[in-house]
Amino acid sequence: MTLAHETNVNVVLRKQGEIVLEERPVPTIQPDEVLLNIKVTGICGSDVHYWLHGGIGDFKLKAPMVLGHESAGIVVAIGDNVKHLQVGDRVAVEPGVSCRLCEECKTGHYNLCKDMKFAATPPIDGTLCNYYAHAADFCYKIPDNLSLEEAACIEPLSVAIHTANRSNIRSGDRVMVFGAGPVGLLCCAMAKAAGAGHVSIADISPSRLEFAKSYYTDSQIVLQRPEVGEPNIEYSRRTAKAILETEEMADVVIDATGAETCVQMSLMLAKNGGCVVLVGMGSAVQSLPVQELGAREVDIKGIFRYRNTYPRAVKMLSAGTIDVKPLITHSYPLKNALDAFEHVKSGRDGAIKVLILG
Amino acid sequence: MTLAHETNVNVVLRKQGEIVLEERPVPTIQPDEVLLNIKVTGICGSDVHYWLHGGIGDFKLKAPMVLGHESAGIVVAIGDNVKHLQVGDRVAVEPGVSCRLCEECKTGHYNLCKDMKFAATPPIDGTLCNYYAHAADFCYKIPDNLSLEEAACIEPLSVAIHTANRSNIRSGDRVMVFGAGPVGLLCCAMAKAAGAGHVSIADISPSRLEFAKSYYTDSQIVLQRPEVGEPNIEYSRRTAKAILETEEMADVVIDATGAETCVQMSLMLAKNGGCVVLVGMGSAVQSLPVQELGAREVDIKGIFRYRNTYPRAVKMLSAGTIDVKPLITHSYPLKNALDAFEHVKSGRDGAIKVLILG
Amino acid sequence: MTLAHETNVNVVLRKQGEIVLEERPVPTIQPDEVLLNIKVTGICGSDVHYWLHGGIGDFKLKAPMVLGHESAGIVVAIGDNVKHLQVGDRVAVEPGVSCRLCEECKTGHYNLCKDMKFAATPPIDGTLCNYYAHAADFCYKIPDNLSLEEAACIEPLSVAIHTANRSNIRSGDRVMVFGAGPVGLLCCAMAKAAGAGHVSIADISPSRLEFAKSYYTDSQIVLQRPEVGEPNIEYSRRTAKAILETEEMADVVIDATGAETCVQMSLMLAKNGGCVVLVGMGSAVQSLPVQELGAREVDIKGIFRYRNTYPRAVKMLSAGTIDVKPLITHSYPLKNALDAFEHVKSGRDGAIKVLILG
Amino acid sequence: MTLAHETNVNVVLRKQGEIVLEERPVPTIQPDEVLLNIKVTGICGSDVHYWLHGGIGDFKLKAPMVLGHESAGIVVAIGDNVKHLQVGDRVAVEPGVSCRLCEECKTGHYNLCKDMKFAATPPIDGTLCNYYAHAADFCYKIPDNLSLEEAACIEPLSVAIHTANRSNIRSGDRVMVFGAGPVGLLCCAMAKAAGAGHVSIADISPSRLEFAKSYYTDSQIVLQRPEVGEPNIEYSRRTAKAILETEEMADVVIDATGAETCVQMSLMLAKNGGCVVLVGMGSAVQSLPVQELGAREVDIKGIFRYRNTYPRAVKMLSAGTIDVKPLITHSYPLKNALDAFEHVKSGRDGAIKVLILG
Repeated sequence: MTLAHETNVNVVLRKQGEIVLEERPVPTIQPDEVLLNIKVTGICGSDVHYWLHGGIGDFKLKAPMVLGHESAGIVVAIGDNVKHLQVGDRVAVEPGVSCRLCEECKTGHYNLCKDMKFAATPPIDGTLCNYYAHAADFCYKIPDNLSLEEAACIEPLSVAIHTANRSNIRSGDRVMVFGAGPVGLLCCAMAKAAGAGHVSIADISPSRLEFAKSYYTDSQIVLQRPEVGEPNIEYSRRTAKAILETEEMADVVIDATGAETCVQMSLMLAKNGGCVVLVGMGSAVQSLPVQELGAREVDIKGIFRYRNTYPRAVKMLSAGTIDVKPLITHSYPLKNALDAFEHVKSGRDGAIKVLILG
Repeated sequence: MTLAHETNVNVVLRKQGEIVLEERPVPTIQPDEVLLNIKVTGICGSDVHYWLHGGIGDFKLKAPMVLGHESAGIVVAIGDNVKHLQVGDRVAVEPGVSCRLCEECKTGHYNLCKDMKFAATPPIDGTLCNYYAHAADFCYKIPDNLSLEEAACIEPLSVAIHTANRSNIRSGDRVMVFGAGPVGLLCCAMAKAAGAGHVSIADISPSRLEFAKSYYTDSQIVLQRPEVGEPNIEYSRRTAKAILETEEMADVVIDATGAETCVQMSLMLAKNGGCVVLVGMGSAVQSLPVQELGAREVDIKGIFRYRNTYPRAVKMLSAGTIDVKPLITHSYPLKNALDAFEHVKSGRDGAIKVLILG
Repeated sequence: MTLAHETNVNVVLRKQGEIVLEERPVPTIQPDEVLLNIKVTGICGSDVHYWLHGGIGDFKLKAPMVLGHESAGIVVAIGDNVKHLQVGDRVAVEPGVSCRLCEECKTGHYNLCKDMKFAATPPIDGTLCNYYAHAADFCYKIPDNLSLEEAACIEPLSVAIHTANRSNIRSGDRVMVFGAGPVGLLCCAMAKAAGAGHVSIADISPSRLEFAKSYYTDSQIVLQRPEVGEPNIEYSRRTAKAILETEEMADVVIDATGAETCVQMSLMLAKNGGCVVLVGMGSAVQSLPVQELGAREVDIKGIFRYRNTYPRAVKMLSAGTIDVKPLITHSYPLKNALDAFEHVKSGRDGAIKVLILG
Repeated sequence: MTLAHETNVNVVLRKQGEIVLEERPVPTIQPDEVLLNIKVTGICGSDVHYWLHGGIGDFKLKAPMVLGHESAGIVVAIGDNVKHLQVGDRVAVEPGVSCRLCEECKTGHYNLCKDMKFAATPPIDGTLCNYYAHAADFCYKIPDNLSLEEAACIEPLSVAIHTANRSNIRSGDRVMVFGAGPVGLLCCAMAKAAGAGHVSIADISPSRLEFAKSYYTDSQIVLQRPEVGEPNIEYSRRTAKAILETEEMADVVIDATGAETCVQMSLMLAKNGGCVVLVGMGSAVQSLPVQELGAREVDIKGIFRYRNTYPRAVKMLSAGTIDVKPLITHSYPLKNALDAFEHVKSGRDGAIKVLILG
């Protein structure tokens, strides 16, 4: 292996507010790992959040950390035990590596593994670099008809697949999604892929809803903000009522915002016996209309990342069941990574998914 | 049929705070109905609540209503279309009659039927009387080895069965129950019947927990009330932490209190990927630690009454899988119904389930 | 109601081999029924089988019976208790009426109701007539963007929906279907609607497979018949092996033929942990490679008609999730019903679904 | 570590029909392994089958192999990476080690892993020895109130747990089991643990049924063998009919015999919508009444070993949910292992589970 002298630029969050490019040695690999030449990395809201706030919930940045976890690349070296991959393979990178030994891993719920090492969740370095060593069993070869750009989108798509799996969307179902960002839009796409008959999307941004018109949604709902001084629960009640003037109640409601009002409305807008899935991350404690649960058996489920989604995602993208390409609105070379972050932060020019190309 | 001249005493809630005995005509039956001589009726917390407060949530007493919905009796007449019952059969009475025609009914979720007529939920008269006409398909013949007293307990047991079904308790599971009233205790019994390896129960009443020691529980947790001025979420966090000094986190947590603090602790004490079922009715809006859902995939499910539980309950009680007899602590003749209500209200003498015998 | 003098032509199977047109009185309706002017009826393989053989399995024709059960029509009168339909509504007709009272009905499995009355299953008259009285709760109003022809196809589509529900097809799954008749093709469509990534279809008819190329399938497999004297299990083993040269094993295999060889191959071609659904009706006793179950945990499930499929079907067809129109290849006026039966029997001219228009 | 000079006697199947005791070196362990001093090993029917026939299905003995896979022991050394176990811990040994990397392992279905290494399945050596090196994550510490004898029974109990999981037994269900050997009896115990209201067991051995009377069964059915020349399907039909004179149809039927007649009767005796689980291993191809599937939606599921059962088993045995001690009828010291095998082969003296003590 002659990669030791290759350039390996890393996008490092040195501390809250400070992203720098750093050259680091090309990593060596363990017998169960592969070395990847990362070609594409999408910027996630969480990357931007770490940059701007230095942490998310209980995860705090305590030391410099490489950002990025939505990646695809090319295998440039394989460990001695690796059998299912070869040098030259193009792969989607599942960024979390679980212990494989605990009860959660053994039962297939590895996203809940307490020893999970997840790229760009402190203190684990992310994938925004040229060369990245990764557990081979979390790298998924993609077929020729998939681009590396699409493969990088499998990470956010995985959140949507896991959401669909957990919500048990069935053929003909009516699905409503709060939040028209990348994850919300992908939840719409997955709802359709799972057979939803009607998908509605709600957001406060008319331009995002305009985009959604041509992306796996059947109706779009423009939300207004609460009036000054209006309690959230009252805003939610009157807004939910207004929504029901044009929309039917939904079998499944997905909140991809994390906002208390949207979670409240989700519960109000789910059918009797329906399901609400919380995908967005918001306040740790929220005021919820629990009477909707007791009187109408609406279930609430949370999502923590995803599990067992990559093989399905590869098959679906390859089969054309879902098209993620329309979501890719902008891209930047690795050397201009900071510009990409600034772009995502601003949200300008209709940015949905911004990629960094290695 | 010569019942027209029989005495038919009814326990009527005339208005908030006023229960009276009234004689009413023996009802006539429709072709799909049976006439029942009600022999046993358990008093439910909801009966007492209607008596003391004149309503529960959106259900308000607007006219006099017969109380009672936990009943068993003897078939004294059958309608022309009734085939599965005969005069003389001893039956458990499922007190809600659904429309059988709507999508909820057709899919087996008849407890969510919007046309449900449920005994002693306004404006539908309850079963606390001598003679009651009821849909034959909601009457379940009991075998000789079951008493009518046990049969009357199938109604609250049904809540526990539905809870167990919804929570998907599996063999070896650890289950925690908040609230050691009749429904909480029956949830413990059902958890054991569904294979739970360890059942814990928590309550503020030491005497109730003392009873629970010999009723399907493995450990008992004495709860203290919040300190003056202490926010609920802080009380819940410190109490949950204290509970974990002697208890493990649970696969399934059942709240049979409705108290915001207990719901909060339920979420905190469920394992990653676990399930919380809300059985108790409390405030319509509650402040919940939703981060437990998003970071740990704890599901929340509500329960509205029950569905398809009576046939299973009859089989389980007959097989001895569960014993409800220890819960029956007191009984009163129908003519002393008001004393029975006063007894339940006071909770004195270790009252758990108080029956009225017709 | 002035329909009593209307013409009501019925297509009656008088005995095996003899179909006649008979004029019968316009039926009167019960309070829970509607009177339908049947406009479209598809011919099912079972209709033809009754005509040619006088029975299917345990169901024997013992008296003249009206044929037909895949119908749609217009409401011309409603019973006193009917609230959800009005005169003039266009409806899809679910042809089986269950008792609504038994445990199967109460739990949502009404297709297994022992008192089911199913159109054109002896001795119940079918729907091939001008005027048909039907339980209102089994009539489903269709929206303006659905034709009555499409609505008539909801009956065979229901078999496919129930199959998909029972097989639990998930996003990205690989699905293989044996049999390219109407039901097999609809199973392909439903597999796609449920998110299948790749759908393969196998048949002995190259022309049917040619049609399938443009109908919700990704690959087509031409089957040869067994060689003379070759045991079925040996044929199945070598054919399954040959199929695996170009196909991957499937998560779900659906047999829509009933042929023992196809059932055998279905078991051989399902992945470890996969599922085989038997939709076709074949010999009552078949020789199956059960080792596939024990060593690989392949499940086998049968389908008996369907349940709770009509509301979903209406939503899916209306939303365009599935298009049934390409399956409708021919149609005949009611007076020429016998020609339609002859056409289906012959299978000529690429007939897939042949309709009779009232 | 000073174990290198310890005696390590192994029970080796040199070839079909020849079991010998061999001294072998104490194994060394890998970083993820522990070294176990095996204390108890149950003899399984498969051990005897390998001894008598030299193979089971596709698994053929090609070289000498140590027998045994139902074991418990004491940890005497731990690898560098092992954190959850300590020297001195008493553990139950899950005898199959999966790859932890493939899609089956990742989704929790590790029993279907194609790289599974399972003790005493050729060519992998079994556990009948003094010292055994094993993957630490497949060793489960048992609490003080469990004996090593009970811990050894977790292996066959695991088959019963997996069976119960797959069959989805629910509270009050009626369960019927064919075969009153150790696995059949444990399936009865698990059915009860999962809430079954009535468990019936059928066998041709009156003495086994006599034992079953006091072991988690409510009724016992003595089977007769088919008459000479009687086709299996006819025997099954008449016997199933005779059984129904005293038994009701069952929600779940478990076949723990593998016999074609018992599988046929299982399908005939399951309720509409019920489930049949095939636990026994019999002929590779069997003649089955598939009409029971198509007309009554009876599902058939196979079982291949088990998955994720040990933690649950430890909890259930420790909680007393199930008692396995009555099954342990005989034990032999390791040096007399051959006598133990002869005893199991003969079935004499009411042998159910025979243990070898190390």
